[in-house]
Amino acid sequence: MTAADDRPTRPGFDAPPRFGVNYTPSAGWMHWWLDPDWEAARRDLRTVAGLGADHIRVFPLWPVIQPNRALIRPAGLTVLRGLVDLARAEGLDTCVDVLQGHLSSFDFLPAWLTSWHARNIFTDPDAISGQQALVEAVGSTLDGRPGFLGLTVGNEVNQFSDRPHPTPQPATVAEVDTWLTTLLAAARRASPGTAHAHAEYDAVWYQDGHPFTPAQAARLGDRSVLHSWIFNGTGQAYGGMSSWSHRHGSYLVELARAFAVRDDRPIWVQEVGAPLSCLSAEDAPGFVAATLRHLADCAGLWGVTWWCSHDVPRSLVDFPELEYELGLVGADGQVKEVGRAFSRAVAAIRDGWTPPAPRRTAVLIPVDDTDLPLSRADLGPRGAVFESWMSLGDAGRRPTLVLSSRADPQSLAAQGITEILTANAPQPT
Amino acid sequence: MTAADDRPTRPGFDAPPRFGVNYTPSAGWMHWWLDPDWEAARRDLRTVAGLGADHIRVFPLWPVIQPNRALIRPAGLTVLRGLVDLARAEGLDTCVDVLQGHLSSFDFLPAWLTSWHARNIFTDPDAISGQQALVEAVGSTLDGRPGFLGLTVGNEVNQFSDRPHPTPQPATVAEVDTWLTTLLAAARRASPGTAHAHAEYDAVWYQDGHPFTPAQAARLGDRSVLHSWIFNGTGQAYGGMSSWSHRHGSYLVELARAFAVRDDRPIWVQEVGAPLSCLSAEDAPGFVAATLRHLADCAGLWGVTWWCSHDVPRSLVDFPELEYELGLVGADGQVKEVGRAFSRAVAAIRDGWTPPAPRRTAVLIPVDDTDLPLSRADLGPRGAVFESWMSLGDAGRRPTLVLSSRADPQSLAAQGITEILTANAPQPT
Repeated sequence: MTAADDRPTRPGFDAPPRFGVNYTPSAGWMHWWLDPDWEAARRDLRTVAGLGADHIRVFPLWPVIQPNRALIRPAGLTVLRGLVDLARAEGLDTCVDVLQGHLSSFDFLPAWLTSWHARNIFTDPDAISGQQALVEAVGSTLDGRPGFLGLTVGNEVNQFSDRPHPTPQPATVAEVDTWLTTLLAAARRASPGTAHAHAEYDAVWYQDGHPFTPAQAARLGDRSVLHSWIFNGTGQAYGGMSSWSHRHGSYLVELARAFAVRDDRPIWVQEVGAPLSCLSAEDAPGFVAATLRHLADCAGLWGVTWWCSHDVPRSLVDFPELEYELGLVGADGQVKEVGRAFSRAVAAIRDGWTPPAPRRTAVLIPVDDTDLPLSRADLGPRGAVFESWMSLGDAGRRPTLVLSSRADPQSLAAQGITEILTANAPQPT
Repeated sequence: MTAADDRPTRPGFDAPPRFGVNYTPSAGWMHWWLDPDWEAARRDLRTVAGLGADHIRVFPLWPVIQPNRALIRPAGLTVLRGLVDLARAEGLDTCVDVLQGHLSSFDFLPAWLTSWHARNIFTDPDAISGQQALVEAVGSTLDGRPGFLGLTVGNEVNQFSDRPHPTPQPATVAEVDTWLTTLLAAARRASPGTAHAHAEYDAVWYQDGHPFTPAQAARLGDRSVLHSWIFNGTGQAYGGMSSWSHRHGSYLVELARAFAVRDDRPIWVQEVGAPLSCLSAEDAPGFVAATLRHLADCAGLWGVTWWCSHDVPRSLVDFPELEYELGLVGADGQVKEVGRAFSRAVAAIRDGWTPPAPRRTAVLIPVDDTDLPLSRADLGPRGAVFESWMSLGDAGRRPTLVLSSRADPQSLAAQGITEILTANAPQPT
């Protein structure tokens, strides 16, 4: 080993991205947390490791781990540590989501936040201190544990803040700022040596008025986190097997890069999946391969965490149909075609990986003086910016995006951008 | 033993009522169900038995035992069986509430009934079939088990149906009828040899427009169930140590008798407690003794189940203040003065019990042709019927109540009533 080998590598910059899966236990889906079946989990994780994954993301259910605001169950933390250790033993690192929250159409809120005790998650001081306590407890119990990669502040908690949630809990951008920085600081205190993030579904990019903003997504926490789901209108508008759907994830990565203020900020595609509401089962493996290939062509991609490991067992009811078939592995433990496609694509990317070349051409995103897009609808499916970016790809280009606030010559040079295109008029400016 | 000793006794008719407590585990309150601490439970139950209680009522939390509509956790049923067995070993029988539901200000609804999956508990076919499955599973797993006394269909589930619940789930009286009879039939099928009931808080008696009715309370299921809480306005209006507050429980018993169609229908005061929002700690023991003495003077009283066994530990937060101090036993396991008062009163009642004499004087309750009171407000605190009944007691009388639909001479004779008083004019008619 030479001294050079000791140099820390940065996935997406000087090493291939990391590849993992969101862990949906075969034994009872997320209700595994009530009845941890360690043999089933070992089998699951061995299968996941066999796909070539190097990490998992896990979701301790909020009402199970913190049933009272002041009761963070020691037994719940023990189960979490046990799962991190088991994953490690199977060769997998673990990212942990705190505040579940929302998963696959189900909201899991503890009784102390609902009904007679309804409190705004984002603004109520007691609600925030309760969340802070949970983040700190989970971070502390895992800090220094081999294989622990860091926390994410909940899974798509932003869905609670705005339409179309049935009972949205309104918050301002400033309040969300405070909420995010408070919880990220708690994570940092609890586990200073790991990387902590927050995670939104794509309303943050595409929905005007949404109190979570692109700037927050791209600047707060240690990584920019993206959830790429083509059932957001992309698959419906352009077809699941269109190149535009295949490039939806990489488009989000370039969006996140445009809003970042540091060129070396890592970007994590924390969720991307192949929903059979937009794809046939036959096409899904091709979608997996194409999506991963496009993502690997984005600089600074820390990693991709596929949704999900195991199909939801059909014995559990009330899930939207598409949720039953998102696994790389069946509920029976057998690797599916999409699993093999994931495995092959990951191996190919790792084998052939070189740092992606800079993207010189950028589609302009008009923003206000807080870097909020003037129209987030323009960024989403059927939006002008979205379609301009996608069209450039069809024409063989490798576009990125740029904010109007960073389109002066000096900023462009810093970003390596030599050409700006404005949406609706996709011609060189 | 003579042959006569084999005759089954009927508490409240030819034997003293049964006395028990609602079991609030000292280790984690109802969150005990997530982390069953059997040694703590054994200590708790031994203390409860030491008070002279002969039974407990227990509350497996709904989201813990049925996290998915189609997943009734075998491990949850195992814990429940274990608790029934443990109670039995300590000399206590067990009543089991299914559908928790609501407890001490907290709503515990599973994710499959809330938010994106919000479904009317009382009317949605899938919601009902899910509840039916849970009732059957709990009943079946306990059927034939020594010490198992039967099921109650949830704790005050009626609060979900009407104001002041923050998100009421409207239902008609007919829909509630169907819901109750469906679930009671499920309980009967699952455990034919035990007694099954349903339980409402007192909106059923006092709140006009409430979709649960006195007739349902007094006629469906195997017992009429009453929850007597003087914080309903009685304590506030008349003082917690007034005789009217002491007689609130016995008033409810006579109300239930008036609405029954069988004279031998057992009446169960399933909850009654001494809330320090209406009482001083010094007065609470006297309230316990007086309340029990008045209750024991009501014919057909199957039993009284005091709320509750153990104080809520102060380490748990967000409960209304009064909920922390309702235990007969402290969170530290020490019997409180109220516990000693309960114990003494129960011993005295058992020792001196003779069947209560019939109540010959009745206050009239005007009802419509479905036996719905024309004014339920009149029955409640500050209402004319309530105050007439209470005033008669002050005058040394032992009144009951009678429906206008059963006030003809033949019905009166069957009820043993010889004198009717109309409210607002408390003079003999």
